[in-house]
Formats: sequence, C-alpha cells, structure tokens
Amino acid sequence: MASHEGKPIRVALLGCGTVGTEVVRLLIDQAADLTARVGAPVELAGIAVRKPNKHREVPAELLTTDAEALVTTDDVDVVVEVIGGIEPARALLLSALRAGKSVVTANKALLAEHSAELFEAADGSGADLYFEAAVAGAIPLLRPLRESLAGDRITRVMGIVNGTTNFILSGMDSTGASYAETLEEATRLGYAEADPTADVDGFDAASKAAILASLAFHSRVTAADVHREGIASVSAADIAAAKALGRTVKLLAICERVTHDDGEGISVRVHPAMIPTSHPLASVHGAFNAVFVEADAAGEMMFYGQGAGGAPTASAVLGDLVAVARNRTHRGRGPRESAYAGLPVRPMGQTPTRYHISLDVADRAGVLSQVAAVFAEHDVSIAAVRQEGRVDDASLVIVTHAATDAALRSTVDKIGGLPVVREVVSVMRVEGEES
Amino acid sequence: MASHEGKPIRVALLGCGTVGTEVVRLLIDQAADLTARVGAPVELAGIAVRKPNKHREVPAELLTTDAEALVTTDDVDVVVEVIGGIEPARALLLSALRAGKSVVTANKALLAEHSAELFEAADGSGADLYFEAAVAGAIPLLRPLRESLAGDRITRVMGIVNGTTNFILSGMDSTGASYAETLEEATRLGYAEADPTADVDGFDAASKAAILASLAFHSRVTAADVHREGIASVSAADIAAAKALGRTVKLLAICERVTHDDGEGISVRVHPAMIPTSHPLASVHGAFNAVFVEADAAGEMMFYGQGAGGAPTASAVLGDLVAVARNRTHRGRGPRESAYAGLPVRPMGQTPTRYHISLDVADRAGVLSQVAAVFAEHDVSIAAVRQEGRVDDASLVIVTHAATDAALRSTVDKIGGLPVVREVVSVMRVEGEES
Repeated sequence: MASHEGKPIRVALLGCGTVGTEVVRLLIDQAADLTARVGAPVELAGIAVRKPNKHREVPAELLTTDAEALVTTDDVDVVVEVIGGIEPARALLLSALRAGKSVVTANKALLAEHSAELFEAADGSGADLYFEAAVAGAIPLLRPLRESLAGDRITRVMGIVNGTTNFILSGMDSTGASYAETLEEATRLGYAEADPTADVDGFDAASKAAILASLAFHSRVTAADVHREGIASVSAADIAAAKALGRTVKLLAICERVTHDDGEGISVRVHPAMIPTSHPLASVHGAFNAVFVEADAAGEMMFYGQGAGGAPTASAVLGDLVAVARNRTHRGRGPRESAYAGLPVRPMGQTPTRYHISLDVADRAGVLSQVAAVFAEHDVSIAAVRQEGRVDDASLVIVTHAATDAALRSTVDKIGGLPVVREVVSVMRVEGEES
Repeated sequence: MASHEGKPIRVALLGCGTVGTEVVRLLIDQAADLTARVGAPVELAGIAVRKPNKHREVPAELLTTDAEALVTTDDVDVVVEVIGGIEPARALLLSALRAGKSVVTANKALLAEHSAELFEAADGSGADLYFEAAVAGAIPLLRPLRESLAGDRITRVMGIVNGTTNFILSGMDSTGASYAETLEEATRLGYAEADPTADVDGFDAASKAAILASLAFHSRVTAADVHREGIASVSAADIAAAKALGRTVKLLAICERVTHDDGEGISVRVHPAMIPTSHPLASVHGAFNAVFVEADAAGEMMFYGQGAGGAPTASAVLGDLVAVARNRTHRGRGPRESAYAGLPVRPMGQTPTRYHISLDVADRAGVLSQVAAVFAEHDVSIAAVRQEGRVDDASLVIVTHAATDAALRSTVDKIGGLPVVREVVSVMRVEGEES
C-alpha cells in the first residue's frame, strides 16, 4: 500500500452526542484509509463536551470542557462541530475560522442564519467552511450543488428534507388517523422529539431550504426569508382528498426561480403539498430524504438517501473532513461563498402555485357557476373539476392552474363566504405536475 | 453584482460535435455567471476540429485543425476534451497535462484504459484531471464518490449507465418483441447507433463500471478487468420469465467488495439481470440513468438523472471546468488519483451471484428431486421453486440463494444435461434483493 507522508491533520471535535460518537468511531476504525486518502494522518486532538463524566464510547483522555481553548490552540488544524443550535456553536466557529482553522459543521440552524458571517471569517484567514451534513444527512447534495452544477443554471430544488414530518404524514396516509393521534404515535416510537416544534412547524426544513437556495441561486437566503407552513393543520380530510385524486401529501422544501414584473427573483418555501402518487418523491418514506434538482442544461436529477441518524450524518461529516484535510495537506482551498447573484426572495403572495380545493356545497343548480365566477374574477384558471352529489349536498373538488399564491388565497377566502358553500373541506397546494 | 477580478482562464476545446457545441453555447451564454463563480473570466482560446469547414453554431475564428499546437500553447490554461475514443485523445491529453494544463474530459473509454498514465502526467505537472461527464452524463456521481464519500467505506455501486440498452430492454418488456426486432426499432428511432456494438455488447457500460470501481474502491480497474455480458442473448422468454415473477430485466453495471478465501477483493461486472419491479432501478426508462451506492456509514443512496445527450453532458463538463478554473484562480488543486487500496479484481467465477433458472421438464414423479439433487451436489441453496404442470410436460422455475457464479454455471450445465429436462428456457442473474 503506497502511502503519502505528511504532517498529521489535528482535529478538534465539538460535541459528542450520537453524531459525534460516530465521527470518533469512524476516525479510529478507518485511520489507515483516511491517512491514505488525505496524504497525512487525521488525528483527534480533543473533544469538547459540557459533561465530561457522562459515559461515552470515546477515548476519555481527549475530553475537555474548554471548547474555546480547544478551537484556537496551535495544535488544531480543523474543527468539526456537531453541537447544533446557534450559541455557543457560532462563537466557537468564528473563533476557529479567525484563527485559521478549517471548519466542518452539521449545523443547519447556524448556517441558515449566520453563513455570511462565517464565510467572511473563513475568507479572512483562508480557511475552509464545509457543511454537507447540514442538509439531507448522508446524501451528497451540497457538493453537487456547489460544484458539480456550478457551470449550469439551476431553476428548481424540491425535496423531502425532514424525516419526522414525513413519518407522520405517511402514517396519516396509511391509517387515516388524525394529525394529533399520529404525532402521539410518532413520539412514542421515538420518531418525534418530546418537543416536536422544530420538525412539525417546519423550522428544520426551512433552515435546510435556506441553505439549498443560497447554494443553488448564488444568493444569500436566511431562514427568516423562508415562507414556512408546518403540518399541524394537515387534516385527515386533506389526506383523504389527496388520496381520492391519486395524490399524497408531503412536507416539501421548495426553492425556485420566479420571474415577476420587477425581474428575476426566487421563491423559498416549506409547506405541505399534494403530489401525484406516481411522483418519485411520493414513495420516499421514514428516515429517507430525497431532493429533486432541475437545471437548464442538466435537466432533472434526483438524490436519495438517509437524511438523518448518527452514522449517515457522520459519513457526510467525514467526507468534508477528508476534503478540508486534503486541502491542508496539498495547500488547496475549497469553494467559498458564492452570493454574487443577489437574487431577491419574493414574498409568498407573488409565488406562482397551484391549489387543490375541496368544498361541501349545496346540491342545486347554479352552484358551480357561482364558484367558477369567483375563480374567473380573480383571474385563476381551473385545471380540473369534480362534482359528486350526495343526499342534499354535494362535494366539489377543484384543481387550479398556476396563479399567484395571493390570488389563490383571495379566491379561497371569497368562496368560503358564498352562501352555497357549506364548508371548505380542504385547501392544499399541488406540486410535482405540469402546471 | 459583486465580481472578483482575475486573470482570464483560457480554454482549449477538443472536438465540436453535439457535446462540444453545447459547451461553447453555455460558455458564451453564461459568461457573466461563470466569471462570478470562478473569480475570473473563462474564455475560449480555440476549438480543435478535423473538418473546419463543416457548419457549426460556434465562432468560426476559434476553429483550428492543429490540436497538438492548441493544447500546448502558453495561451491555454485548461483543455476540455469531447472527441471520444482512445487516439488522438490520449496523446493530446498527455501533452496537455505534461505542459501543465488542467484537463476536463468526457471520455469514458480513455479513462477506463489509461487513467493511471493520465493521472501520472497530471501529478507530474500539478495539473487537475476531472471527468464527471464520463459516467452517467449530467448526474453528479463521480464527485460524490471521490469526495463526499471519501470518509466512508463504499461496499457497492450498482446502476443503469447505458441508455441504448435500457431503451431496448424496456421496449422488449412492454411489447414482448424479440431482441432483434426491438434493436431494429431503436436504430430506426435514433436510440441505437448504426453499429450498436459498443452499447449492446456492454463495452460502454464496462468502461463506466471500471471508472466507478476505481473511484469507489481506491484501486486501479481498467475496462479489461470488467466481466462483460451484453444484451444480445436476452430473449423474449427471459423477459416473460422475469415478468411472471414480478421482475424486470435491466443491463446493470455492478461494482462490489467481495471477500473470498484469499482476502478482500472486488467484483466489477456488466450483465443483464432480473430485478424486482418494486426496485427503484426498475422504473428508470429511456435516456435516464440511475446509480445506487451503498456505504457502511451512509447506507443506501441513489443518484438519478439524464445519462446522455448534448446539454446534460455539457452541464457536467462545465461543472468540472468551473472547478479546475477556480483551482487555477485560487491556486488550489482537485483530488488526484487514489489507488492506494490496490484491491484485486476477482474473476467472475468467484463472485457471489444469484440465478433464476426456468426449465421445461417432463411432468412425472421424481423430476424435482433429480433437479434438486444437482443443486445440492454443487452446494447451491434454492430460495424458491415454482412448478406448473401442462399437458405432458411442466414448467419449473428455480431462484437460488447466493453462490459463486462458477458453482451456479456448473449447476445449470449439469441440469441442462438431465434427460428429464427438455429445455433450459431462461437463465439469468437476479439482483436487487436480499440474498
């Protein structure tokens, strides 16, 4: 086995939970391979934790509670952060980058809020900042967006990037149970956290959407720019309405170019949507994530794999670690921030979407014409209508063509107020089909 | 729009067919974006072609017939090769690399035979060698293997990497027609070339398999190491037999780690195989390619997209071009050859596979026991049997558990010679299921 000689790359690990423990295990188990791949040994210099006495399957002598000292010591070349959350991760990584240490992080929340500041610190010292593990776990997705597609014009990124909500929606789809019941079951089985807010309200997916949009469109997008709707309002009626039309409900993160009167912009949003059951994203279940990417020259691509879990996330962290270690060994430098396009994020109201609307209406003549008139008045074109009579009322299902979200929203509001409409049973956006 | 200032990156293009023309178009149309992404303008220095007077949608003043002069001139930083074939591509790229020019190539045949030599030349001068477009067209696949998964242990790569054979097999599956008829139709529609040998005999897929195996297993694998079986021997009976069992036939490129008595090795092969219709690869049609990757920590991943065509291939070429141009501008260096593991390629006979065997047998007592005895004698374990009687003969379908390909082959040979076996209707490997 030919091996390159080289000065060891010394790694500081911040955090030692599920992912951190896996990172340590892989660094030790695969030491010989990593040395050969990097051209130098990759060694753990220390592991910063809050509670050093907690039992962990890692070498105890490496543990320290002084994270700030660890990330700035001369003995460290690369800092790997798997603590999560904004502070103290932000302060520690800024210290590390300013001290010239390259950083590998899995921290989506931090990247989605403070990437500009982090990239600036990295640029100042010539350090690398890599974060493949922050989105879609083990799936190589950010490197393809940042590098493989760097010569193309990406038009759309759409995917399932949160496992908890996907588990809950799949459960509702297969059992017909309510959101509340299914969430309870998911919590009992460990698929949802005790406080599921970050997942079910879409915060986790919104952070990931911000990161994806930034990379895909060479523009700064933060979590606050992302239109966010969670799954708490998805009802059993929504799921049933989707099923009746050969569709299924998924929580999607969508980043796309939109052209409005005042020029090019982007839409970045997280919301539940109906997609056809024949769509490849419809069959993505459990902890798996999948992301569609569309680009002008490349066409349509899909990336699929495990979106969470200790080992898959650690795989992505280690891939980045090998890259920054190679860059250290061979005096290279990874891609830096690319935000030159500066495309504005359009408000949701200006975003073109399609709606599915399911109504309970009085079963008498003229109902459809009254409802249709409201659509016409708002300049919303109808793609499909299905009316079914019952004893003295009827079910009316309408799927629209693309219109601005604002126009669709006003249409639904007005329709809900028509005397002939007894109930708006379900309103949901439709994705994954020709508009 | 903030832009970085920098010395222009001068590009020599070798070849100007479908892909080359698209590369030129994208370089011109996206000049402003490429400049911003690279940090310097990316300019065409010249286009080497054999017939300069042929009509092309490219600036005529850039055309030259002197490729050798173009690739070594001081005015060129990067050489993009889309000629294909071994010579003159090999000689030109060696000249370019030795002269310190970075190389981007889409040439699978060349990479699958001469990558060691090319990497050596690149290493000698510190130039980059990128070839994302050589496998699976627009799908970012090589960069994930070389970089994203560099901290993991890849165990298997399996995919559909040839569109022509996929089109023919899909056609046979949907119409029930013979191979010859379907090939004729494919040729008529332009999905198969006038001389379809490279595709239908599996040469194209074998080159890609060699490249994938080299990267996945950090070992040198050439096209000659790849066990190769094309689709010409796939019969309508094979397709029907697959269908009857809820399977479909695909030409697969498979690279996997195999452990034999004398240690770890790899199996690299291209052959038709039955996969379950529920397998994600089963629904990959037409020009689309898809590749499954399994790694210890990351688990299972899939990459899907357009595997051929001018624009998709040009997208991959341009992604590489941006990477090597960035490396020039920022004095970086891409990943070099990683062949440290030096794993031996095992002969097909030692590779564990599973067989599906469909027989016409005499319908009388004792037939199954005679057939089963042959399996037992070769130490091949049977996973499933289905026997159906007809007037005076019967159909017997057997699916095995994993055994070495040699043992399976001998078993089939011996069974074919049993007097009770009237005909071996179909023999095909089975993939994509638990063994």
